[in-house]
Amino acid sequence: MSNSQRRLEAVKQHISPEQEYRNAIDPVISMNEERAKAAFDIRSLTYLLDGGENITLLKEKVMQELERDPLFKMDDVYDLSKFEIRERTMEKFRSMLHHLQNESVDQFKKRMEIVSLIDPGFWTRFGVHYGLFVGALQSNATSGQLGYWFEKGALSLNKFIGCFAMTELGHGSNVPGLETTATFDEASDQFVIHTPTLTATKWWIGGAAHSATHAAVFAQLIVKGKRYGTKCFVVPLRDPKTYNLLPGVNIGDIGKKMGRDGIDNGWIQFTHVRIPRGYMLQKHTKVSRTGDVKEPKLQQLTYGALLQGRVTMVADSGHVSKKALTIAIRYAAVRRQFASSNANGVETKLLDYPIHQRRLMPLLAQTFAMLFTGTEMTAMYNYMMSRLDSAKEGDKDLDEVIEMLKETHSTSAGLKAFCTWNCLSTIEACRQACGGHGYSAYTGLASMYQDFAVQCTWEGDNTILTLQLGRYLISSYREALKGKKLSPGVGYLNNLHSLIGRRCKVSNLDDILSFDVIAEGWQVVCAHVVKNAGSEFEECLKRGLNVDDAYEQCSQSRLYAAKLHSFNYLFNRFADAVRKLSGNLYAVLKTVCLLYGLYTIEENAGAFLQYEYFTPAQIEFVRMSVNDLCRQVRDQAIPLVDSFNLSDYAINSPLGRKDGNVYVHYFEQVKRSNPQGEHPYFDRLIKPLIHKQSNEDDYEEELAGLEEEEEEE
Amino acid sequence: MSNSQRRLEAVKQHISPEQEYRNAIDPVISMNEERAKAAFDIRSLTYLLDGGENITLLKEKVMQELERDPLFKMDDVYDLSKFEIRERTMEKFRSMLHHLQNESVDQFKKRMEIVSLIDPGFWTRFGVHYGLFVGALQSNATSGQLGYWFEKGALSLNKFIGCFAMTELGHGSNVPGLETTATFDEASDQFVIHTPTLTATKWWIGGAAHSATHAAVFAQLIVKGKRYGTKCFVVPLRDPKTYNLLPGVNIGDIGKKMGRDGIDNGWIQFTHVRIPRGYMLQKHTKVSRTGDVKEPKLQQLTYGALLQGRVTMVADSGHVSKKALTIAIRYAAVRRQFASSNANGVETKLLDYPIHQRRLMPLLAQTFAMLFTGTEMTAMYNYMMSRLDSAKEGDKDLDEVIEMLKETHSTSAGLKAFCTWNCLSTIEACRQACGGHGYSAYTGLASMYQDFAVQCTWEGDNTILTLQLGRYLISSYREALKGKKLSPGVGYLNNLHSLIGRRCKVSNLDDILSFDVIAEGWQVVCAHVVKNAGSEFEECLKRGLNVDDAYEQCSQSRLYAAKLHSFNYLFNRFADAVRKLSGNLYAVLKTVCLLYGLYTIEENAGAFLQYEYFTPAQIEFVRMSVNDLCRQVRDQAIPLVDSFNLSDYAINSPLGRKDGNVYVHYFEQVKRSNPQGEHPYFDRLIKPLIHKQSNEDDYEEELAGLEEEEEEE
Repeated sequence: MSNSQRRLEAVKQHISPEQEYRNAIDPVISMNEERAKAAFDIRSLTYLLDGGENITLLKEKVMQELERDPLFKMDDVYDLSKFEIRERTMEKFRSMLHHLQNESVDQFKKRMEIVSLIDPGFWTRFGVHYGLFVGALQSNATSGQLGYWFEKGALSLNKFIGCFAMTELGHGSNVPGLETTATFDEASDQFVIHTPTLTATKWWIGGAAHSATHAAVFAQLIVKGKRYGTKCFVVPLRDPKTYNLLPGVNIGDIGKKMGRDGIDNGWIQFTHVRIPRGYMLQKHTKVSRTGDVKEPKLQQLTYGALLQGRVTMVADSGHVSKKALTIAIRYAAVRRQFASSNANGVETKLLDYPIHQRRLMPLLAQTFAMLFTGTEMTAMYNYMMSRLDSAKEGDKDLDEVIEMLKETHSTSAGLKAFCTWNCLSTIEACRQACGGHGYSAYTGLASMYQDFAVQCTWEGDNTILTLQLGRYLISSYREALKGKKLSPGVGYLNNLHSLIGRRCKVSNLDDILSFDVIAEGWQVVCAHVVKNAGSEFEECLKRGLNVDDAYEQCSQSRLYAAKLHSFNYLFNRFADAVRKLSGNLYAVLKTVCLLYGLYTIEENAGAFLQYEYFTPAQIEFVRMSVNDLCRQVRDQAIPLVDSFNLSDYAINSPLGRKDGNVYVHYFEQVKRSNPQGEHPYFDRLIKPLIHKQSNEDDYEEELAGLEEEEEEE
Repeated sequence: MSNSQRRLEAVKQHISPEQEYRNAIDPVISMNEERAKAAFDIRSLTYLLDGGENITLLKEKVMQELERDPLFKMDDVYDLSKFEIRERTMEKFRSMLHHLQNESVDQFKKRMEIVSLIDPGFWTRFGVHYGLFVGALQSNATSGQLGYWFEKGALSLNKFIGCFAMTELGHGSNVPGLETTATFDEASDQFVIHTPTLTATKWWIGGAAHSATHAAVFAQLIVKGKRYGTKCFVVPLRDPKTYNLLPGVNIGDIGKKMGRDGIDNGWIQFTHVRIPRGYMLQKHTKVSRTGDVKEPKLQQLTYGALLQGRVTMVADSGHVSKKALTIAIRYAAVRRQFASSNANGVETKLLDYPIHQRRLMPLLAQTFAMLFTGTEMTAMYNYMMSRLDSAKEGDKDLDEVIEMLKETHSTSAGLKAFCTWNCLSTIEACRQACGGHGYSAYTGLASMYQDFAVQCTWEGDNTILTLQLGRYLISSYREALKGKKLSPGVGYLNNLHSLIGRRCKVSNLDDILSFDVIAEGWQVVCAHVVKNAGSEFEECLKRGLNVDDAYEQCSQSRLYAAKLHSFNYLFNRFADAVRKLSGNLYAVLKTVCLLYGLYTIEENAGAFLQYEYFTPAQIEFVRMSVNDLCRQVRDQAIPLVDSFNLSDYAINSPLGRKDGNVYVHYFEQVKRSNPQGEHPYFDRLIKPLIHKQSNEDDYEEELAGLEEEEEEE
């Protein structure tokens, strides 16, 4: 409602000027105004994002259950010590176990998705056992071994909690370089697990400090003096009756971290710890009673399970961004700052400032891109895994499955990296967009950053993952030159001849506002940067470098190619999803998707100009269009974040309250968390400091040193 | 030393292959190798950065004193609760007071600079009184009032600790929009300080929760029903004898924050609190006994003191970046990962990876740019303030001083914003460059991020500050069009005619590696973007918008212009400083400065291509040169961070230890902070969870479900 309309309305309703002013700045009224702007059916968008009405209902059920579960109280965690958080996190196992035993796998996965948004520390602690430890069994154990460990309690947590002991103090990304040894002792039919050096100490092991009875330990298999590389072994750590450490096992607490203090990361040193031969998980490599080692023919097929984590993190980056943006955008809809000259002293909503739209609307668009891409990536992964499970060595479609595995491996690597980076930047941008209040623990964005930051490192350091994708792009490029037909994600490299040198051929600047033009532009620049990286690589080979060194030398070009390829991929998944829609939902998401496409072009304008897909004038048009699209998306910003459908409990930030009543909720939260009371250290610390000299104090009326001037005039 | 040289050396010295391998991976030996590469005198660079040998010696003295002061123990802070940190922070006042009373102002400033690096929370708590409260007195009190408050104990902390009560729950950046009222009551010759609404609650007030006896309160002056805008009033909060709140004063604790928990931020509500008229600070606006209000003629002159904070933060961004990069670069010099195929299993140093050089070397270069710019900015500010102090209304050089004030105001606004953003990104990049260990609290980068993040918001929200600079650039541009000669920082706008359309005219690509070419390029793109922003602004005016709305409409262009202008400024200050050098110091810093210049061009390639200063081929050369310069700077990286001359105590991170012995120090730190002991909650929480069913457990030798296959062959 414009200011003059509002005044007219006030006059009609006999509202006093003061009441009129109070209404104008009332945050709840402001929020309702925004909500009334919805130009599409919010509920339909929620169903679309969730994957159907039934999933939305399930998510709502889970949010309500968690909200009512006293163990999942979340608004007081910021003032708990690390020990208190750890205890509370452990307590939550109970109710999660209950659900695990009574829900379908799909239902439980959705539950965990919500839990990861609400309590990332607990999600990690629970996930270390059910995701990593059980996952290690599933990927590496024979079916008999799997049955044995499940029988032993690994699935029911019966005298059993597992952890996943891969990384070491001196070794992270380079798994083949791990130092821990597992030496076969034929005489006793045992493996001896040993930590030979300080740097071989298992490090960052989630659940090791206080939770786990067993560890899936990755160690160098040594049989008859020969090394066979890194394999996985189940090693008992503690007596489940007493939780005393078993002989030869030394464990300590890694202690305080940037975030996720609910998970008890630990370090482990093994000193000649003996385990039965059968505790080596032998689905792939087998060691017989007499020390014969049988290695698998296709090592690649063992990697599939490792991709689950990074695929999940693409979707998670979308989910966490939803939460951060709900807070920042709802706050921006009610926070007012600086009065416009023609508004009778009513300050302007942050959301009405073009610069604030510029800070948040592109990130909102990016969130949709990550959500649709996450859905697509998950489907691609599931399909690939089902094909992989049924494929046998020697099958005729195995080659196709391996191609699919390679593409999923590389695409998920790049997307994991860029989506987690995007999400971390989004959280920080949202935090800064809340001004000073973003620095308060109680507004939720600070801890969201601290909890999320680890995602850029774990399950593959982001930079290393981007280089994996870059390597795949270069090798795909070289294969394409040799005439091989590539898989769809890199299919454009089969088309280099027509893409290189292509320019945007629109007759009107307005025609740039099209999915096809944007998609073409991305293909063209990607073709260029992949070709450049490929040529650089070949020149390195010509200069005599070996393949690995050549790849290292062109790593900056690999990273650049991987970055543009990933943005291209994200845009196309978003556009594909929008193309399937119709009606109002199509209309609103088309605008959001165009904003995403043009914003990413603007951010990478250098590439679009360097490869001359766009002219300088067209790029200037892109810049102006981003402003314009930000303004358009701003109008639907509150309905869009409403469609994310996160409850106030799940958002856990007074600034992101659905009702818009941010100041009341925030003040109450701060008071509840910090009850007023006696001064904690006046007598001990302040009194001796400031009562050193004698002095009279008088607060009575006085001039206080002010010289009175004679009145002039 | 190359691998073959090393082996030759080993043979000569009869070293066993195993000892040879151990030497090759020994972190201390690796660090010494790096240090031996120094191609310049490290100590001379330290003197240059510090501003002379005497300042270096002073800083070293301060670091040693702090290290030996038990109150300044810093390696255990990560495991303290907020209350423990607050208490410890308060205790430190004692030793700082001692130094304050026994050192010169300049010496004490250097001490505070070191303290801010070592304990930002304490620095803030101490700075709230001495920087903000005393600063408010100095800027706003008459000399008589200043004497009165100093007499009263404000300088000696005698029954007196001050705080600075500006921001409110609903009002941050818009100081004129504050709601707190100070109403003159002529009958009693008093002001009544009042918080009329919830959103008027003073918020974020550092020191209010538990430290302060008095507040400098910013409130709306109301005299005889008329509002005169926001003025500053000293309001007593607590009885210094008991620390009980005074009548009408309600104070609470803001509680947990993202960082800096050593400072006790609080909220304050005033309910009709009466203070003597003389407690209004009346250097500028005066209120007489009879309620006559006399306002200053030149409001602008009152702003000078507000700039101190942002000027300091430019230099601070450099200092904090020094600390972060010392950690990440020293770690990269000893951390090894992945074996190169021709290195006999010795893994490669992170620092030898081109991609890792790309992650850190440009940030190292940027740190130098911020340090030299900080020095220059401080000098500019001091000169301006000295001129301002001596200038009187009506003086003939007052116009010049006001121009200078405007330039300092705007330049410092932009630099504060971009330098704090740069620094925050640098910390996070350094944290991620340390891999998983960057997530540990004990490696120091996590808390550095959390402590520093607030700098992007306080003393002026960064986005708003960039817009201030953008507004100044547009108005300078318009003045230049009218023929006015501008001050040096924006002097290039007097030269638009020759800059617009100018292209890089080098005959050899190698000639791009020149300060002059880079500086010219920056001037050209800045001229273009400022002109564009100015034209956009004028079009808005033509469309009928008022000045303020027109500025809002072109805010994205303002921000863009401010960004490029600031990078231009940073490059030029760096280049100016290098041009004054000679010998080896010149040689090394020239390379670092070229890297900075070309890296910033690469990052803003879109602008350089859009305005056609560089061709696509030249931009490609810039990209390749950045790779090359990163490699060159990498060779001097350890000597360069050594020149920052921060002691191990000041760095407070085992990964940044000067001796390179990172794993030993890190493991010791983790063990010291997390002593091994009894399980904290096994009986209460874990036992009931995992001992639900009966089960036999046996860890003896067994096949554990593994089906034995018959040996084939």
